[in-house]
Amino acid sequence: MYYFNNDYNAMCHPAVMDRMYAISRQHFPGYSTDSCCSSAAALIRKLCRREDLAVHFLVGGTQTNLTVIAASLRPHQAVIGADTAHVQVHETGAIEATGHKVIAVPSKDGKVTARQVEQLVLLHRNDSDAEHIAQPKMVYISNSTELGTIYTKDELYALSEVCNRLGLLLFMDGARLGYALTASDNDLTLEDIATCCDVFYIGGTKVGAMFGEAVVIRNPSIAEDFRYMIKQRGGMLAKGWLLGAQFEALLTDDLYFRIARHANEQADRIRYTLAQIGCRMLMENTTNQIFPILSDDVLKVLAERFTFAEMGRIDEFHRAVRFCTSWDTDPQIVTSLCDALLAAGGK
Amino acid sequence: MYYFNNDYNAMCHPAVMDRMYAISRQHFPGYSTDSCCSSAAALIRKLCRREDLAVHFLVGGTQTNLTVIAASLRPHQAVIGADTAHVQVHETGAIEATGHKVIAVPSKDGKVTARQVEQLVLLHRNDSDAEHIAQPKMVYISNSTELGTIYTKDELYALSEVCNRLGLLLFMDGARLGYALTASDNDLTLEDIATCCDVFYIGGTKVGAMFGEAVVIRNPSIAEDFRYMIKQRGGMLAKGWLLGAQFEALLTDDLYFRIARHANEQADRIRYTLAQIGCRMLMENTTNQIFPILSDDVLKVLAERFTFAEMGRIDEFHRAVRFCTSWDTDPQIVTSLCDALLAAGGK
Amino acid sequence: MYYFNNDYNAMCHPAVMDRMYAISRQHFPGYSTDSCCSSAAALIRKLCRREDLAVHFLVGGTQTNLTVIAASLRPHQAVIGADTAHVQVHETGAIEATGHKVIAVPSKDGKVTARQVEQLVLLHRNDSDAEHIAQPKMVYISNSTELGTIYTKDELYALSEVCNRLGLLLFMDGARLGYALTASDNDLTLEDIATCCDVFYIGGTKVGAMFGEAVVIRNPSIAEDFRYMIKQRGGMLAKGWLLGAQFEALLTDDLYFRIARHANEQADRIRYTLAQIGCRMLMENTTNQIFPILSDDVLKVLAERFTFAEMGRIDEFHRAVRFCTSWDTDPQIVTSLCDALLAAGGK
Amino acid sequence: MYYFNNDYNAMCHPAVMDRMYAISRQHFPGYSTDSCCSSAAALIRKLCRREDLAVHFLVGGTQTNLTVIAASLRPHQAVIGADTAHVQVHETGAIEATGHKVIAVPSKDGKVTARQVEQLVLLHRNDSDAEHIAQPKMVYISNSTELGTIYTKDELYALSEVCNRLGLLLFMDGARLGYALTASDNDLTLEDIATCCDVFYIGGTKVGAMFGEAVVIRNPSIAEDFRYMIKQRGGMLAKGWLLGAQFEALLTDDLYFRIARHANEQADRIRYTLAQIGCRMLMENTTNQIFPILSDDVLKVLAERFTFAEMGRIDEFHRAVRFCTSWDTDPQIVTSLCDALLAAGGK
Repeated sequence: MYYFNNDYNAMCHPAVMDRMYAISRQHFPGYSTDSCCSSAAALIRKLCRREDLAVHFLVGGTQTNLTVIAASLRPHQAVIGADTAHVQVHETGAIEATGHKVIAVPSKDGKVTARQVEQLVLLHRNDSDAEHIAQPKMVYISNSTELGTIYTKDELYALSEVCNRLGLLLFMDGARLGYALTASDNDLTLEDIATCCDVFYIGGTKVGAMFGEAVVIRNPSIAEDFRYMIKQRGGMLAKGWLLGAQFEALLTDDLYFRIARHANEQADRIRYTLAQIGCRMLMENTTNQIFPILSDDVLKVLAERFTFAEMGRIDEFHRAVRFCTSWDTDPQIVTSLCDALLAAGGK
Repeated sequence: MYYFNNDYNAMCHPAVMDRMYAISRQHFPGYSTDSCCSSAAALIRKLCRREDLAVHFLVGGTQTNLTVIAASLRPHQAVIGADTAHVQVHETGAIEATGHKVIAVPSKDGKVTARQVEQLVLLHRNDSDAEHIAQPKMVYISNSTELGTIYTKDELYALSEVCNRLGLLLFMDGARLGYALTASDNDLTLEDIATCCDVFYIGGTKVGAMFGEAVVIRNPSIAEDFRYMIKQRGGMLAKGWLLGAQFEALLTDDLYFRIARHANEQADRIRYTLAQIGCRMLMENTTNQIFPILSDDVLKVLAERFTFAEMGRIDEFHRAVRFCTSWDTDPQIVTSLCDALLAAGGK
Repeated sequence: MYYFNNDYNAMCHPAVMDRMYAISRQHFPGYSTDSCCSSAAALIRKLCRREDLAVHFLVGGTQTNLTVIAASLRPHQAVIGADTAHVQVHETGAIEATGHKVIAVPSKDGKVTARQVEQLVLLHRNDSDAEHIAQPKMVYISNSTELGTIYTKDELYALSEVCNRLGLLLFMDGARLGYALTASDNDLTLEDIATCCDVFYIGGTKVGAMFGEAVVIRNPSIAEDFRYMIKQRGGMLAKGWLLGAQFEALLTDDLYFRIARHANEQADRIRYTLAQIGCRMLMENTTNQIFPILSDDVLKVLAERFTFAEMGRIDEFHRAVRFCTSWDTDPQIVTSLCDALLAAGGK
Repeated sequence: MYYFNNDYNAMCHPAVMDRMYAISRQHFPGYSTDSCCSSAAALIRKLCRREDLAVHFLVGGTQTNLTVIAASLRPHQAVIGADTAHVQVHETGAIEATGHKVIAVPSKDGKVTARQVEQLVLLHRNDSDAEHIAQPKMVYISNSTELGTIYTKDELYALSEVCNRLGLLLFMDGARLGYALTASDNDLTLEDIATCCDVFYIGGTKVGAMFGEAVVIRNPSIAEDFRYMIKQRGGMLAKGWLLGAQFEALLTDDLYFRIARHANEQADRIRYTLAQIGCRMLMENTTNQIFPILSDDVLKVLAERFTFAEMGRIDEFHRAVRFCTSWDTDPQIVTSLCDALLAAGGK
């Protein structure tokens, strides 16, 4: 069976494993106060070209989202997200469990626009009963989004401008940041992101690490006492150097970006083939997630050799599915998938 | 100035004041362990024709909603409500502050249907990643709704059936229950409600009391330790007999229903006049809230003599507003309002 | 039966009732945006001799404590209180339900000392694992305390100094503030309290009001968006003018202080009698709560005519109890109680 | 430098690393739905000799504690723990952040007794204001405790009996369970623990794993929907098989117990030496944590070659410290430490 079901079905990139193996007989102080974490944090500051960034390492995405949001908001404040946002639909109410409402705004492509944020916030502020409504204070975006789309430089700076102007915080979930920054049409840099966002993270779990997300905080009010927040929410890894070591490996020699680019390139090959056979797409994008709409017959055939994720029924005969590539995707297997698609002809 | 801005702009019905005055020199045990509360609870059980109901008295609606929901759900469980529900849009995230997501379902008339509940719950249960999604467990409805509409007997029993079948809890916010049960087209009784709902409340604040909501709990798992929950959430009134005494007054000689019917009748007169002048309505209903769409010119004239609530702009020249009647609404003033509307001609 | 069980067993002082009756036919805007509340707030600012104070009115003490603390702390921060503090032992975990730890410090007299606060905070800050421990950030004191004792000017200024120096917030629960400020040995003024505390409240429920606590906030970071917090926690009374009107009555012609002084004086009479008969006290104090240790035999006799609260068994033959006076305590009944005590002879 | 500072300063036992390496090229379904987790769960059920146990794998201890407690309690319920309990003193208020009070009972040796639990619960139930006090519902114990002590069979069965009789839940934090079960004077088995506790966990992080705690749930009311709780609290590891694989390795050929016994034996050697030199102990115990009281002079010398943890100053010249052994402790280094202690002579 060949695996396109998600981008976290394999342990980690061999270089990550090698790095962990290399330090496996050393002793370290606990709780990310070690040299691996400080070295990885330094690498991240350098990539972002800013010295004023606080960097912390957490194990997973939901944990990171809930810790960041809980650290950022007062109790009556809410976070704005797309109606497809991970925090809205796929975290079992983790944000609400910290006491905060997620205000969902409609989105076709998984993105939130500066205009949506401005309208929502002004509507709230102009309400004579504003105090009876949760106060929008933070904007949550993901890049790439849950639908594989990415933010352009213009879009991100527009969001940043409206957040600054209205006193909101901007938070980017970067669980798949590598895939976003290496997409063929991307014009954003880590530097842009660190400039625009109050806080964001560089996702490891879905981009070659065993596990781990590197939180980067520019806003000092969020950074203050952030380690208390990590500990309180259960995210303080005893052997924290495991996180630092993985990011050291990923951020050395551009590995993080090389493997993400590889995944995108393999996805592009699949997209090209889908276009050839005239396949409709649930969502057009340029990253490692591909969302074709295929007939039940074709999917039945494909399912014999390839794993993929179900996205929902489109009509009586068609379903949308997701194929996902990763650092681990073998080009030859992509060739097999493309051949299978061509043979099926998009029926 | 004449007041149609809401149904809680006057202190309380004179009979409530008289009752409070009558006991003002007595001493009582604290925290609703007094004879007024037990007597009022007995009256409610009798009206509901069930002896197995737990009755508790709280001060206000948001407090009641958050206490009931927090008492009913485990942390990963969510409450389903209309997208117009008070708990969704007008409680500053009070439910989320207890840790629970509110799942909003689209509603044109402020009501939730049995079919919506069933579809949402089955969609969740059939999701292979169900555990990544907050679990829908309770259905929140209000009667009358935030848009003044009411549930029919058929609708309520259908909701109850689907909740029983799927293991959900049914909760009715009755902040305006009096107005619902005395609407001209109502076919529900308190007995029906006590049969169908796991928990509901009989609202006092908006129906003639100074303050107070009587929570009625049929489901023993919610009733267990409910006084702990009231105390923890800050809703345990030291001089609890103030609540009991008010409900004694309201539930004696049918006062609660008589004053609600009065309000509905006055609202019907306004509705009749609005129909005469061909006025469009934001929402058709039969209770004490009336939602006409009127021109800025007409509203400007009306605003000189009458207060009302703004519901939002409809087009360049029109806004929707709310006129609200209550136990306190003087028929002569309604005549004045109707005359003013007829004079304005619905422009 | 004569009532010494608590100071909230009677409805309200007649002047409060009169004031409410006087406005019972008027209409007001909701949610404490009315003229009664603004007038009462102005009276409070004047009494505190500061114009920079935010004043809000809530219904009860636990509600006030949890709202103030939730509004003041970030999630990882804790509140320090005496081990006898209301927030620690008598609010069903209301503070923890907002997510915050209560750090209890040992106290014989219900008070927290500046030295205790300093030691605890420095111990925390010097811990190499400080981040693994909830961060002490606010000091909760009550005046008078749960044991009827009061803070001296020196003690309060010392607490304020240590809080300022260490970046802590100082919060005074004034549920019984009237009794504290009119105690025979009190040297504090409202002005002192407003100077020393970031936030405090003037309790109405236990000092002559039907219900109501007036929160006074000096620290702008707590004051910001405080109405959102009130609403979210269920404390926003629809007919908020009921609160304002009561405080108008209580703060006119010094009524609040006069009735508190009356209660203290009656308590002094009981204390004097207890001293005469050589009765041991659970706690010495000068306010309206009296804590004698009496024999089961004496208590049995007293219980036939007087109500009081149980504080716990002291030895095989003795229990500590609490007698409470209030605005409502009739001097003749105090004479009866004193006579009964003298007759019993403190056995 | 030789490391006795804690039992989680080295990556993992080589057999764990080997197992992870062996599966590093395989693909697995996410979120612990894989074969490694099911196989490890089966091993645990077999060791506990019960088929009715739910087993889940989490990354760390605080995460596990907060998830278990949040899953077990209704909002007004509290957990009882020793005043030295990890949940009370070393988790940054993580339990309170889920809304629950930790009720600390005094303990000299880190243990909670059945008698303490019974007294506390009966005191609460007999209080006429019981509803004003957080309801004790769960007993949290750790084995070995934070002070290295262990529960005897008699003690655990007594706790279990009182919990069953009073309707309480019993939860054992087994972060160091291996060291407890292999202590020279231990008489408990995993089977006893699974019989007595509603829920417990087998700690991996401190006993040879890279990370990971295996939660074992006997009580179906806690087990229900537990995966929702894990996800909501951020503990659902994407690559969950990493957890299963580690426990497979640890539970094969008794490895978990062999390495724990090794650690205890090395600790015994240090204890023997400390006894030889007449050293006072902060706490006597038989597991891998040793708490000697040593002079500043001796500690200064030791600190040049050995790491250890500070436990606090005892008097002007002495401090208590902790030496910790682990699977990784080299007997030759223990010899060096013992030699150093003998040379210093316990001064």
